[in-house]
Parts: sequence; C-alpha cells; structure tokens
Amino acid sequence: MVHTKLKGVIVPLITPFKSDYSIDVEGLKWLVTYLIENGVNGLFVNSSVGEFASLTLDEMKTLGKIVLDTANNKVPIFAGISTNFTEGSISLGKEFKDMGADFLVAMAPYFFKVSERELLRHFSLIAEKLDSPIIIYNIPIYTGINIPISVYKTLVSQYSNVVGTKVTIDSLIYLKKLVRELKEIRKDFAVFTGFDDYLLPLLSMGGDGGVMGLANVLPRLHLEIYRNWERGEIDNTNWIKLLELTEIYDYCNSYTASIKAAMRALGMPIMNVTRPPLDTCNEESVRKKVNEFKNWLVL
Amino acid sequence: MVHTKLKGVIVPLITPFKSDYSIDVEGLKWLVTYLIENGVNGLFVNSSVGEFASLTLDEMKTLGKIVLDTANNKVPIFAGISTNFTEGSISLGKEFKDMGADFLVAMAPYFFKVSERELLRHFSLIAEKLDSPIIIYNIPIYTGINIPISVYKTLVSQYSNVVGTKVTIDSLIYLKKLVRELKEIRKDFAVFTGFDDYLLPLLSMGGDGGVMGLANVLPRLHLEIYRNWERGEIDNTNWIKLLELTEIYDYCNSYTASIKAAMRALGMPIMNVTRPPLDTCNEESVRKKVNEFKNWLVL
Amino acid sequence: MVHTKLKGVIVPLITPFKSDYSIDVEGLKWLVTYLIENGVNGLFVNSSVGEFASLTLDEMKTLGKIVLDTANNKVPIFAGISTNFTEGSISLGKEFKDMGADFLVAMAPYFFKVSERELLRHFSLIAEKLDSPIIIYNIPIYTGINIPISVYKTLVSQYSNVVGTKVTIDSLIYLKKLVRELKEIRKDFAVFTGFDDYLLPLLSMGGDGGVMGLANVLPRLHLEIYRNWERGEIDNTNWIKLLELTEIYDYCNSYTASIKAAMRALGMPIMNVTRPPLDTCNEESVRKKVNEFKNWLVL
Amino acid sequence: MVHTKLKGVIVPLITPFKSDYSIDVEGLKWLVTYLIENGVNGLFVNSSVGEFASLTLDEMKTLGKIVLDTANNKVPIFAGISTNFTEGSISLGKEFKDMGADFLVAMAPYFFKVSERELLRHFSLIAEKLDSPIIIYNIPIYTGINIPISVYKTLVSQYSNVVGTKVTIDSLIYLKKLVRELKEIRKDFAVFTGFDDYLLPLLSMGGDGGVMGLANVLPRLHLEIYRNWERGEIDNTNWIKLLELTEIYDYCNSYTASIKAAMRALGMPIMNVTRPPLDTCNEESVRKKVNEFKNWLVL
Repeated sequence: MVHTKLKGVIVPLITPFKSDYSIDVEGLKWLVTYLIENGVNGLFVNSSVGEFASLTLDEMKTLGKIVLDTANNKVPIFAGISTNFTEGSISLGKEFKDMGADFLVAMAPYFFKVSERELLRHFSLIAEKLDSPIIIYNIPIYTGINIPISVYKTLVSQYSNVVGTKVTIDSLIYLKKLVRELKEIRKDFAVFTGFDDYLLPLLSMGGDGGVMGLANVLPRLHLEIYRNWERGEIDNTNWIKLLELTEIYDYCNSYTASIKAAMRALGMPIMNVTRPPLDTCNEESVRKKVNEFKNWLVL
Repeated sequence: MVHTKLKGVIVPLITPFKSDYSIDVEGLKWLVTYLIENGVNGLFVNSSVGEFASLTLDEMKTLGKIVLDTANNKVPIFAGISTNFTEGSISLGKEFKDMGADFLVAMAPYFFKVSERELLRHFSLIAEKLDSPIIIYNIPIYTGINIPISVYKTLVSQYSNVVGTKVTIDSLIYLKKLVRELKEIRKDFAVFTGFDDYLLPLLSMGGDGGVMGLANVLPRLHLEIYRNWERGEIDNTNWIKLLELTEIYDYCNSYTASIKAAMRALGMPIMNVTRPPLDTCNEESVRKKVNEFKNWLVL
Repeated sequence: MVHTKLKGVIVPLITPFKSDYSIDVEGLKWLVTYLIENGVNGLFVNSSVGEFASLTLDEMKTLGKIVLDTANNKVPIFAGISTNFTEGSISLGKEFKDMGADFLVAMAPYFFKVSERELLRHFSLIAEKLDSPIIIYNIPIYTGINIPISVYKTLVSQYSNVVGTKVTIDSLIYLKKLVRELKEIRKDFAVFTGFDDYLLPLLSMGGDGGVMGLANVLPRLHLEIYRNWERGEIDNTNWIKLLELTEIYDYCNSYTASIKAAMRALGMPIMNVTRPPLDTCNEESVRKKVNEFKNWLVL
Repeated sequence: MVHTKLKGVIVPLITPFKSDYSIDVEGLKWLVTYLIENGVNGLFVNSSVGEFASLTLDEMKTLGKIVLDTANNKVPIFAGISTNFTEGSISLGKEFKDMGADFLVAMAPYFFKVSERELLRHFSLIAEKLDSPIIIYNIPIYTGINIPISVYKTLVSQYSNVVGTKVTIDSLIYLKKLVRELKEIRKDFAVFTGFDDYLLPLLSMGGDGGVMGLANVLPRLHLEIYRNWERGEIDNTNWIKLLELTEIYDYCNSYTASIKAAMRALGMPIMNVTRPPLDTCNEESVRKKVNEFKNWLVL
C-alpha cells in the first residue's frame, strides 16, 4: 500500500483481451507500465470501462493481482468491488485488501432498484465490514440510481473510511451540490469526476481530480491540466483540447469501445477487442481524431 | 426433461435463506414440493424474485440442482441464466442443460446499456451456442432496457429454439403488439406475463400464461383463473381477487420482500429473510391482507 | 344540461380543420350529429385529440358553443378547460358553465412541472371556484406529471363536485389502484380510460367507461363492448377487434393524425388536416386496416 | 430596435404581480430600469421565469409593450413567442416585431410530444414567416423534448435569421457538442445558457453568455464574470460565488419563486407573488443566503 494523497488523474484501466476474448496479461502489464511512466496518480482496476461487468469473479481477482504486482507500489491502486449484492462486494473487497489494494471502489447495486434506505444500508455494510478506504462510485447511467446527496452525507458522517467518490454524472449542478455539502462535513473527502469533460470544471469547483477513460490513451493531456491547476493556473486551452478529444466517444457504441479503438489506432500493443455484449468499434472511426493528438503521446 | 406444453402458471421461485443468509435447502425443497402438489405448470429457478442477482454463480448452480432433483421431472424446469455478459450466460446455460433443465431463461445485459444491435447479438449468441429451448426475459424496470419488438421478431424468425418470452412490463399496449406481431411469425411462440395483475388480460389477448411472484404463495388462485380460461371461461371474479392480493406488493420495498413476508404470515416453513441490498419486510405489514385469502391455501 | 349517468363511451372530439387550418364548422356539426345518432354517451370538446393545445382561447369557446348547440341536450357535454395556469382554467370554466356544459375537464399544468402540493392546490382552486361537476384529466405523456393517487384522494374527499377522471395511462397497475382506492371513498366516482385498448379491462376492474379517440371513427365497436358489459357479458371478441383497430395509431405520428386519416379513408366529410406542430398522416397508411372494419360503420 | 452584438448577460425578466395576481406595471418598470442601470446586455420578456405560461396572450403583449417602452432602445429586447402551436407563435411574433422587439425567442411545443420531423417543421415555419432574428429556446425540463443537435444544424444552415439559442440544460456534454457543431456552421451563432451555474463554463467552451434568472436580482455578479471573461480573465472566484448564490434555487419549489423571494428579501419594490400553479416561497427561506451577497446590490 502506498500513501499518496487522494487526488489528480486516476486511470480506470481498460481490460485488454485477446481475439479469443481471454485476458491479455501482457497487454495489461504494458498498459500499467505505460501509465505509471507517464506519471498518472493512480490506477483503478475493475472499472466500468474495464468491463468488470463482463468478467467472472475469478477474472476480477486475477486482474487485481496483475495490476498490483506490476504497479509495485509506485502508484495507489483502486480496486473495483462492485457486484450486484452487498455480501458479494464485501467478500471481493476482503480479497483485494489482502492483496494490497489501497482503495476499494463500490457502486450501488445495479440490478435491483433499491430504496434510499436499502442503498444506505448497502454502503454502510460495505464500510463497516471492510477495513480499507472506500470510494463510492456513482454512475446512474448504468446502475439506474443516482445516489442522493443525503445518503453521501450520512456515510461520510458515520464512516471515516469512506474517503472519496467517483461521480460519473453529466450535471454541473449535482456536482456543485455534492462538493459543497460534503466538503463541509469533511474537508478532505475527495470528489472525482468520471467524465473527461468535467476535469477542469470540477477542479475549479473544489473537486480533487478525475478517474477518466481517455487517460488510458493520452494521460499527459489530463495531467497537464491537472498540474497546471495545482500550480494555480486554469488551463482552459488544454481543457478545450480534451473536450475535442472526447468526441471519439460519439463514434462508437460504448466508452470502452472508443478507448480501445483509439489505443489501437495509436499503435499501442492492445488489441481492439471488447467482450459481448459490447461491440468492438472500427479503429478507422477514431483514427483521424486521435492522430490530431499524437503530440501528446509518449510511449 | 419433460415435454409439457409451454403454458399456464409458472412459478418464479423465491430463494429461501436462513437467518445467516445462507441458502435454506430444506425450505427450497419444501417449496418445490408444495407448488408441484398444488398443480403448477412449471418452476423457474434463478428468477428476479429469486434474488438471482444476490447469488454467486455457484449458488445459482446449486439451486438449479436442488430444484431439478426435487421436481424429478414432474413439471418443466426453467433455469435463469442471466448474468451481465453474453459468455457468462452461455456458460451457465450449458451447465443447466447438462443438469436437465427444460428451458433456459435469458435477460438483456443489465449493467451496460447496449445498442439495439448489441442487444440482438447478445441474444443471438445465446440462441446459437445453447442447444436448449430459450425464453427471452424482458424486465426493463431492472435492466433499464425494453427489448424492442423488432429484436424479438428477428430472433423468432432466425432461431427455432427461441420459444417464448416472459414480459414483466406494465403496459397493455406493449403486450398487445408483442402478442400480435410474434404469433404472426410463429403461432406457438409463448408469451407470459411477469406481473400477477396481467394474467387474465394477457390470456384474453392471446398470450399463454404467467410467471408470477404470488404464485409462490397461493398458486391455486392463479391456477383457477388459468384453468377456467382453458375451459373457455373468462374468470373475472377471481382476477379481481388476484388484483386485490397484489396490493401486498405496495406494502414492502421489493416484490421478493412482499412474497417472503406473505409466506411467513401464512405459516409456511420459509424464513422471512432477504439478502441485502434488499430489505426484509415485516410480516405484520401483509398479514391482514393475506389472511383474507386463507381459503386459497392448501398446504 | 342533461342528467345522464356518468358512464359509457364518451368521444373526445377531433377538431375538423379546413385546408387553410381554420375551423371547419360544418365538419364539426356533422361529426356531433353522426356520433349522437350512433348512440354515444357523451361528447368531450377541447380534448387532446381535439388539438386544444393548438387552439386560441377564442377558438376553444367557439367550439364549445357549436358542440352545445348542435348536441342540443341529447347527450352530456364535457368541455375541456385545460390551460397552463389555474386562473386561465377557472376563467374558461366559467364561460363553459354559462354556455351549458355538463362537465368541465381539467388537466394538470403542462408547462411548469409542479410539486405535489402545487398540483393539489391547482385542482382545489378549480373545484372551489367552479360550480360545475369537474373531471380530472390525467395524461402524463403530455403533461409530464402523473397525478398521484393521494392527490386524487384528497380532492375526492374534499370536493363533492370532483365527480370523475379520465386517465390516459398505459398501466393496468395504476388503474387498479386508482379504481380501488377512489371507489372506496366515493362509490360513484367515475373512472374512464383515455386509451381505446383499456376499455374492457377497465370495466372489468370496476371502472365506468372510456373517453377514446377511435370512438370518433367507429363508435359502434366501442358501444358494443360497453353495452355487452352492461348486460353482464365480457365481450372479449370485440375487445380483440378493437385492439386490432388501435394498430392505426402506430402508423402516424400522433393519435389525432391517425384518427383524421381514418375518418377520411372511410369517406367522412372531415378533411385530413392537422395544425402544425402536428403532421398530417397520409390516409393511405390507414386505409387497409380501417377497411377491414367497414361493417362497423353506419353513416 | 438596437444593434448590439448578441452576447453577455441577458435577463429573463420575472413578471411582477400584485397581491390580486394582476400585473404590477410599476414593479416591472422599476425592474427594467434597475437592470439597465446596472449594465445588463439585454432583457428577455415572457420567459419561463417570467411565468409566460401563466399569462394570457393579451398580457404577454402588454408586458412586451411596457418593457420596450421603458427600455427605450437602451438594450436589445428579446420577446418570448412561445405558445403551444406554431401559428400561435408566429402570430405573436408578428406583433412583437411590429412593437420593435429585437429578437424573438421560440420554444419547442410543450404539450404535444412531437417527432423530430414535426419539431423541425415547427421551427422552420417560425423562421420563414417571421422577418426577425430568432432565438431557439431549448428547455427540456418543461417542454419534455431536448432539441436534437441535428435539428439545430438544419435550422442554422437554412435560415440566416436563426441567430442564437438559449439552452437550459444541465449537461456540459450537450453544450460542448452544440457549441462545437454549430459554430462550425456559423461562427457567430450565439449560444447562451439558461442556468446561472453554467455562465463561466459555457464562455470557456466558446459560448456567448447567459440568460439567467438570478440576473434579475444581482446582475453585477454575472456581469463581473462576463466582463472579466471579455478582458481575457477566467474569473473562477466569482463563478464560485455565483454557484453559492444559486443555492437559493433549492429552497423553493420553482426558479421563479426563489427569485421573487430573493428580490423581496433584498428590499426591492417587487411583491413576493407568483401565480398558481406556482407556489410563493417564504422570503425568510432565502434571506440569510442573499444577505451574504448584499455587497453586489446597487439599487
């Protein structure tokens, strides 16, 4: 476990597959090394763009092990423990803690649409039973439920190990409220966006960084914005560039497919393969756009 | 495997738990026996009210085994193979086929929100790779996606083993279209409702029956309506009774919680325990209502 | 004013236009006469399919006048008083009362999305200030708000002139609750469906009839179902026919456009003209289907 | 008509009412003068926060007249022409043009939920028939329809008098696409936000300003941010202040109610009255917050 401050540019790792859909271990090791060498502030394994929902529990554990071994304490590791039920997440969390994960990332249940009380109990049990720092992952486009700020407030008030959140919501107004209300309770509660587009606005509002898919591809662009922010500079120019890059998300059916196509188009040793139900995206769809950003690529 | 016609009152089995949340094998065996003795037309294991999303893969297989063994070919067994990704469902389906399940029941992916093309590919792969009769399970309240009728039409046209569907949608208009358009392609394609309330209207429109949660509790009420239908009689009186019974769904946070509370209130050897994230419902909430229906109970 | 019981087949009148989009007075008079001669139980002027939202206030009043004059007390007249604000509806309601309308039909505000308290106050003010029988019109597809049953219960408990509701919601479960909970408070509170498809199921559940668009075209089909119901017979055969006829709603962009195209296809003296923003629907789209129902047409 | 460039801080005027709900002409004149003296870049009469949906057509015209007369060409006047149907908006637009309004602001139809084709036709007819600069007003929370960017693109390509848009959508991602794709077609097409919160982010992305409710109250705060932007400075400090002020929107049931309560709490000669269906908000709810901003008030 490393004790870096919880901030900056975290990468939700895509999961590289071979053409037979098995995990491409070498690809994953390459990706981890590439990102660490480019200076990212953390790695998140078993994220949504990592297609965790298309992995077996054993595969999720294997991925965690590879990432932890390869990263070798150079950056903090965030391990996704989202499953569809509370005990499933707790059980997975215990294994990742034992492996040495720094932060455990937990989502709302995504099959049953639970009441606010059930939602609070879900996260409370996770925080109680897991002796690790917990990150709440709020991604209503997939879970079908937006975690109410009141639920966050109770959790942050009651559990000191609930230390931060990743919020993948396209709403400046929700983020505004979240940052203001949670920082009032605990100043160092960390708020990250899950959308590349929100990196600078969230920092400007008092947030702490982002866990953003395109940081798999060109992390230096995100890092430049973040480091300038740390130096007290609002880097609007590079934010606009990043907004432009996010256009590739419109070219494919899923965030994951866009990212993998972009990595391949840039010549990275990652195959352009997603597991069904997600369709692969032809790398030609994104090539022109990513080529305009080649100067950000340092392999 | 038994070769009963695909119709009538199918029961989506709740999963009995002990107070420590482990599976209550004896409770499950009792339930299977109780339902068969009451004459139901089939049993569906690993359904939504069966909390499949709160089970591990191993538990899903164990449940399948217990149900198949206990039922002992007396009624057809429907095994739920829903996971979050295509290969996960195929792999589970193969195991249930080997165990002897009669029908495999597959849902849309419920984490990723896929395109229509991806959805079609998901079900196509399942139908291709599994040499069993397949039931499409459409339950948008949980999956977040309503299967378009055009997707159904392609599947029914292309795969002879896509033999029926369970539709848990509160829309007479959707059901009307589905029945009309699919029966035109294949007259014996079976359409079941997943809502107790829709049993009689769906039959009246040309559907084939229901896979309904309250049939865990008082299957004779559902069966009475169905059998009268088969005899050519529209049993509006008992449908109204059933509508009244469904009120207990409003007393609890989830269908499952209502059903388990009702079973307990009626003195069945099933504990009133649901796994988190689902809250248990106090059995007192439902006692008064279920007591009005005691005459339908034959233990 | 006539004192017929509040039940049966009410027709939400389309508004006939000439090719220059002005009101076709002769067409409207013809329609009113046609429907009365066919035996309908009431006429509703300024309904949604009447494109009330595409009329000026003056036009709404003119239509009311024409319909009342032409109907000449032979059937009860329901006058729509929906505007976007409470006082607008009250003011319009007073005029229709003075003209002799039997029932005033009021909708939730459809621009502002109000709180439950605001919604209750809206209807309460309407019920208080208008000395006429009031029908609550619940049509969330257009207003964006589904009137909670609790709001209905308060209104029905407090205002004896709130006498019925038209519910245009594709949900058997909502209707079930509404009928049960409101009839418990006041047995003669009338519940009508706004969807042709729901006529028989609603009657079967204890409702009172329908205010249905296709009754502009072939009211005898709806009336046959209703009259058989009154005689104690569940006319499933004709309900299935009606379901089949409703298919023409899928051929056009709006209910209104389908109805007008059908009327023209059947040779009625009504022009196939809708006001923008609604597109007109080519009458050829619906001709084949309506021709199958010609035996129900008595001009 | 004045020929100021289309940019900056525009105020969607609230409509002052007396306690009997009639229009408070003196209040409105005061407000127009107050805002002009504080330096705003334009006034928008008959906006949503102006409760246009709770006004009669005659009242809408009266308001336009008062605002135009009082403003006396000192700032450009934007007149809302939204009604529920195309011809209604065109007819109102002609009157406002004759009165001297600089820009006409048109919304999607908000009762009928139209197809994309119908939506395009609605705006096309408005642009064709009105010989004035047109602003497209996109506010899906009230209309129930989000204008697709493809519709905008067609309009901007085909009608030179479609000169800008007000977008009241809490989505950075939608705004990003809109700005990029429309400015590519016509560089001077103006994009305004309708949310106070988005003023700085939209400017940073290439937008042109905002039409924001709280500019009724403390326009100097918005103007400071805007003017600093024009000078090349990203005024994050004041944006954060503005975000804090927007909290008062959470204290009341509607934007309008919050604004009116705030104006009253600050001692302005505007009564705290909203027309039903909108509830009035107790001014005490907002007093503490607005008092923290008193230094921005110059009466």
